[in-house]
Amino acid sequence: MRKPNLTINDIAKALNISKSTVSRALRDTHDINPKTKLRVLEFAAKHDYHPDILAQSLRSRSTKTIGVIVPAYNIPFYSTAIGGIQDYAMKMGYNVIVCHSNEQYEIEIKNVEALLNAGVEGIIISVARDTEKNEHIKKLKNKGIPLVLFNRVIEDFKSAKVVVNDYYGAKNMVDYLIKTGCKKIAHITGPNNLLLSNNRKEGYLDALKDGGIEINEELIVEGDFTIQSGIRCTEKLLEDNEGIDAVFAVCDAVAFGTMKVLKKRGIRIPQDISVAGFTNEPMAELVEPSLTTVKQPIYEVGETASKLLFAQLKDPDLPAELCVLETTLEIRESTK
Amino acid sequence: MRKPNLTINDIAKALNISKSTVSRALRDTHDINPKTKLRVLEFAAKHDYHPDILAQSLRSRSTKTIGVIVPAYNIPFYSTAIGGIQDYAMKMGYNVIVCHSNEQYEIEIKNVEALLNAGVEGIIISVARDTEKNEHIKKLKNKGIPLVLFNRVIEDFKSAKVVVNDYYGAKNMVDYLIKTGCKKIAHITGPNNLLLSNNRKEGYLDALKDGGIEINEELIVEGDFTIQSGIRCTEKLLEDNEGIDAVFAVCDAVAFGTMKVLKKRGIRIPQDISVAGFTNEPMAELVEPSLTTVKQPIYEVGETASKLLFAQLKDPDLPAELCVLETTLEIRESTK
Repeated sequence: MRKPNLTINDIAKALNISKSTVSRALRDTHDINPKTKLRVLEFAAKHDYHPDILAQSLRSRSTKTIGVIVPAYNIPFYSTAIGGIQDYAMKMGYNVIVCHSNEQYEIEIKNVEALLNAGVEGIIISVARDTEKNEHIKKLKNKGIPLVLFNRVIEDFKSAKVVVNDYYGAKNMVDYLIKTGCKKIAHITGPNNLLLSNNRKEGYLDALKDGGIEINEELIVEGDFTIQSGIRCTEKLLEDNEGIDAVFAVCDAVAFGTMKVLKKRGIRIPQDISVAGFTNEPMAELVEPSLTTVKQPIYEVGETASKLLFAQLKDPDLPAELCVLETTLEIRESTK
Repeated sequence: MRKPNLTINDIAKALNISKSTVSRALRDTHDINPKTKLRVLEFAAKHDYHPDILAQSLRSRSTKTIGVIVPAYNIPFYSTAIGGIQDYAMKMGYNVIVCHSNEQYEIEIKNVEALLNAGVEGIIISVARDTEKNEHIKKLKNKGIPLVLFNRVIEDFKSAKVVVNDYYGAKNMVDYLIKTGCKKIAHITGPNNLLLSNNRKEGYLDALKDGGIEINEELIVEGDFTIQSGIRCTEKLLEDNEGIDAVFAVCDAVAFGTMKVLKKRGIRIPQDISVAGFTNEPMAELVEPSLTTVKQPIYEVGETASKLLFAQLKDPDLPAELCVLETTLEIRESTK
């Protein structure tokens, strides 16, 4: 009979050795006492630790492949981040395979299974919009698979993480809008179950507070990172409010949607309404007027996630590290 | 000793049975006479047909996963096409894992290895810019792995393929430019080892011929699908020539680069120079002026590739089919 709930932790306790030793034994690395390794493998076999012998065998023979799960194939942020992940992995002699969750938790679970079946040695994940549970990621940790979360992370889950300083990026941008004379600043947020959205919103709120501007809940609407949501939210903002003089969007795609609505209605950017985004996508420079935005070190986010993963591959006992990369303001023509 | 060159064909000939039967025996499907299956497996084992027993075992147990290789992570065309591939695969109960070749033949070879190790049941490929050889793809065919090429295909390699009608897309666009009064029409091509680039160039040349316009080689420069190459090529075109009244770019990204240069130099679009692209990326509608372009059914290209792959999974003997999807003109503000 299978005992699917046996974890590395259980094996470590039963044999009175460290989790790291168990993990290395199961991954068939060479920096381990052969006798200890045999004890671990025998115990694991006896208790059917890895029912999928084939996948396990494939894993243990070192596939030199890591897996990446991103929420969507059409968000330019992830394209660039994958570049950073892959370039570093290739330097280390590894292949990268990528899965897309289509922003759905159920698909994310299947992605994890597909990558495990593929024998990846470690996984880098940015979670789907609607991922609030973390059983699938816990399972990876229990299996001793090195793991790094990036960009969209789960707040209360302990693991290596790479994010940008969303709070300060937003705070600095809204400080800047206030400095240029904007007084009625709307904010289109991201989905509010994501840490990233909340941190950017906090930055917006604190900037208003510091600037002595009263918070008006009607000026805050929830989008979802797409151009379409930028269009929808901006139309709603303009219908419900008068005198808005700036829109701060959670990301560039949403800001492009905002610009589209304003231009269609003959509202001048930035003379009538300033528009600011967050990301610095390649197109931010090319739209007209060019978009003022918070510049994220996107490639570096991916590269850093890759570095943290390889550090874990080398040393499974590495403490979970949170890397926060800084952002800068990229001031262009869409703001006063 | 390994005999790496033994193919399904060889086994079929030696045992006097069909390739399809060999393929099914090796993939451990159930619609085959058990005795025949045994004969094939024994022969294959004796001649060491699949030295990698583990990967083979993993494959044969049906991983319900297909693999995709695309040349770059930052070309929006592929993001959308992957969407079409994945949505159809998911309907069929399959996962999709994606590899990026970074436009390099060597990485493409590694991608193929990574996907085989991952136990994918079929592969969909769009080849790298510098892929001229096809040994790695031949290998897949010899292993009996279902295969579909899409968008960037290798002309003289027989396999299922999905492309758009590049020739007519380009021909129709340049016909249109001529109809609107343009007489000195430049063309920024794609890399000239790719069928796609040559087909679009042929369309451009034939439209000029039909329009009674003499071909001027100085008006044709080679780009590489990036905004940067659009900038570089447009600067060269403007330096070497006078009186250009239209630029037809091999893709939208290149056209964005062209627009950037023209706007910087104060050249009016379309009054002084018309600009046309190819693809219809989401940004084509948002740049200013909005970009006239050849609209490709991108999602459908991916979806069709997926359909052809699953048809092969069902019937390995399916003849290699070439699907050519039609394009339409999307006339916007960047042309007269």
